[in-house]
Amino acid sequence: MTIGFEIIARDGAARAGRLITAHGVIETPVFMPIGTAATVKAMTPDGVAATGARLILGNTYHLMLRPGAERVAALGGLHKFMNWPHAILTDSGGFQVMSLAGLRTISEKGVAFRSHIDGSKHVLTPERSIGIQRLLGSDITMAFDECTPFPSERAAVEASMELSMRWAERSRRAFVARDGHGIFGIVQGGVHADLREKSAKTLMAIGFDGYAVGGLAIGEGQATTFAMTEATVPFLPEDRPRYLMGVGKPADLVGAVKRGIDMFDCVLPTRSGRTAQAFTRHGTLNLRNARHADDPAPLDADCRCPACAGFSRAYLHHLVKAGEILAAMLLTTHNLTYYADLMAKMREAIMAGTLAEFEAPP
Amino acid sequence: MTIGFEIIARDGAARAGRLITAHGVIETPVFMPIGTAATVKAMTPDGVAATGARLILGNTYHLMLRPGAERVAALGGLHKFMNWPHAILTDSGGFQVMSLAGLRTISEKGVAFRSHIDGSKHVLTPERSIGIQRLLGSDITMAFDECTPFPSERAAVEASMELSMRWAERSRRAFVARDGHGIFGIVQGGVHADLREKSAKTLMAIGFDGYAVGGLAIGEGQATTFAMTEATVPFLPEDRPRYLMGVGKPADLVGAVKRGIDMFDCVLPTRSGRTAQAFTRHGTLNLRNARHADDPAPLDADCRCPACAGFSRAYLHHLVKAGEILAAMLLTTHNLTYYADLMAKMREAIMAGTLAEFEAPP
Repeated sequence: MTIGFEIIARDGAARAGRLITAHGVIETPVFMPIGTAATVKAMTPDGVAATGARLILGNTYHLMLRPGAERVAALGGLHKFMNWPHAILTDSGGFQVMSLAGLRTISEKGVAFRSHIDGSKHVLTPERSIGIQRLLGSDITMAFDECTPFPSERAAVEASMELSMRWAERSRRAFVARDGHGIFGIVQGGVHADLREKSAKTLMAIGFDGYAVGGLAIGEGQATTFAMTEATVPFLPEDRPRYLMGVGKPADLVGAVKRGIDMFDCVLPTRSGRTAQAFTRHGTLNLRNARHADDPAPLDADCRCPACAGFSRAYLHHLVKAGEILAAMLLTTHNLTYYADLMAKMREAIMAGTLAEFEAPP
Repeated sequence: MTIGFEIIARDGAARAGRLITAHGVIETPVFMPIGTAATVKAMTPDGVAATGARLILGNTYHLMLRPGAERVAALGGLHKFMNWPHAILTDSGGFQVMSLAGLRTISEKGVAFRSHIDGSKHVLTPERSIGIQRLLGSDITMAFDECTPFPSERAAVEASMELSMRWAERSRRAFVARDGHGIFGIVQGGVHADLREKSAKTLMAIGFDGYAVGGLAIGEGQATTFAMTEATVPFLPEDRPRYLMGVGKPADLVGAVKRGIDMFDCVLPTRSGRTAQAFTRHGTLNLRNARHADDPAPLDADCRCPACAGFSRAYLHHLVKAGEILAAMLLTTHNLTYYADLMAKMREAIMAGTLAEFEAPP
């Protein structure tokens, strides 16, 4: 059977649940750290798991180019390759291929593009994307779609969404069912509620194991992200997981969970960890700032992470100024722990029926 | 009392011992990982300790410039600042200041120089070097010396050595005795056995808690390094630790232990870890090489380190090619483990009386 999803508590539109995959059970709502190139940057797999993460995201586009999906398969699959025993969701490559402006051409068949690494030619179709994700061994496969740029004319958004729906059907057909593995469809439709509804209904008719809301968090603003989430969720099945792609800041996560989203991914905690930014319950800190140079306090005195247990802001500031790798290691550890704990607290609030009072972090 | 040193076994000129410091007991012979800027690069302190290391080296020159010795002292000392509960040896800054060609002037008083970071002016004297090392809280302080360049005229080497001996006396006077803390003198004299002997006898007359052999491994070649070690060791006290500075490759360590050296430091295992080099008992591997791309084997099947337990050469090759931080993290972990285990095996051989048959790694 496919991946399982059990809802164990509801609070308004929000749900607390359990996602059951071939590589373990994941409590939802959940944030997925990004493991682009078969590594969550600056982290060991043990370190990622210690933050509480049990589900990470891998990028089909990056992995197909380097080291190559067939190579990963020959080496035992992505879990073994990167020594991550827990669950993996892979994106379809669609979003990243679309970003290769000037290097790609789109047709009904799929997308032809040149590698950003060496200029070599590649083609990504729904069938090839699903095939790659199978070679990688993803627990959760994403349908191949076109992420419509924002802003776009309504007619272009509609045509793009319709193409994504035809690709979704081909993706679903190409997916080979295996125990504990599933495929998610992706709702498109830009900032148009009626197109979002139409897309959601089309996907439901095809039938997926979970449903993602795609094409958001690309410049339309939080209010519109929330509005499109509200325009989509009512048309998705109650008993299947919902994933808001590419989101987001802590306050975005809180707002989206309140609107019924179960899953998230974003580069923010990891990328910020490599650019001296730390998320805390009292706001964001820039460790490059000289005001931290003599501060013996940790990032957050109440945080359970090893960075907060052992190191001062003064030390982290020093590491940042000196360009030391340990700065990225410690700040990424802290940020992923912060994100995992934020999700865990929302889950507790849902189970206690108090999510409405749950305040978005500054 | 000063740092303790107990010799528990001898085998030829070699000794197995225990170095007793304010921050723990260190089994010798020992290799010290380099923690230049208050971090062993690409490693957490826990990760360093897990390799077996209990004594690391900090750099006075780097730390006095950034973050500053007074700042580290105000934050509780270097151990607390970098969250390293075990022992620390600091160099005197002499070697690195001497490397600032064109940026420094030497006088009887000391060395005036400009920071390589911001061009600011600084002066390092024996008194200031020892004062900085006290502010940092080093378990083992090194006397301030001039590292004579190689090659140099004999007259220049002799004058430089005599200056270092006057600085050694001033360093010893400036050192404030504290329980579990000690100061080491540094033998100079270039590649001249008679100057080495004279330097060693001068230091013994001053009286130090340990003795380093300095000014080697700077281009003179292994045979000369060994010859100068042999020319120095007989003139050092039997009951005090001996430290060969800046050494070295695995085969250098084996040769020097056989000649009576107890302590070593070198950037090789850490720097190599950041440039895709791995040390193994079967030789050195360059993980950038394409021949590793499909190799499912670990770096060394018999290695106990987490990099070998969890990851293939193919994966490490991929990380190196992709420029991922995890490559440096895993390769540094492996290399420091390899060095720690090499020292532990030599210690076992000394205790078993079989060091003569101990073969230098390829």
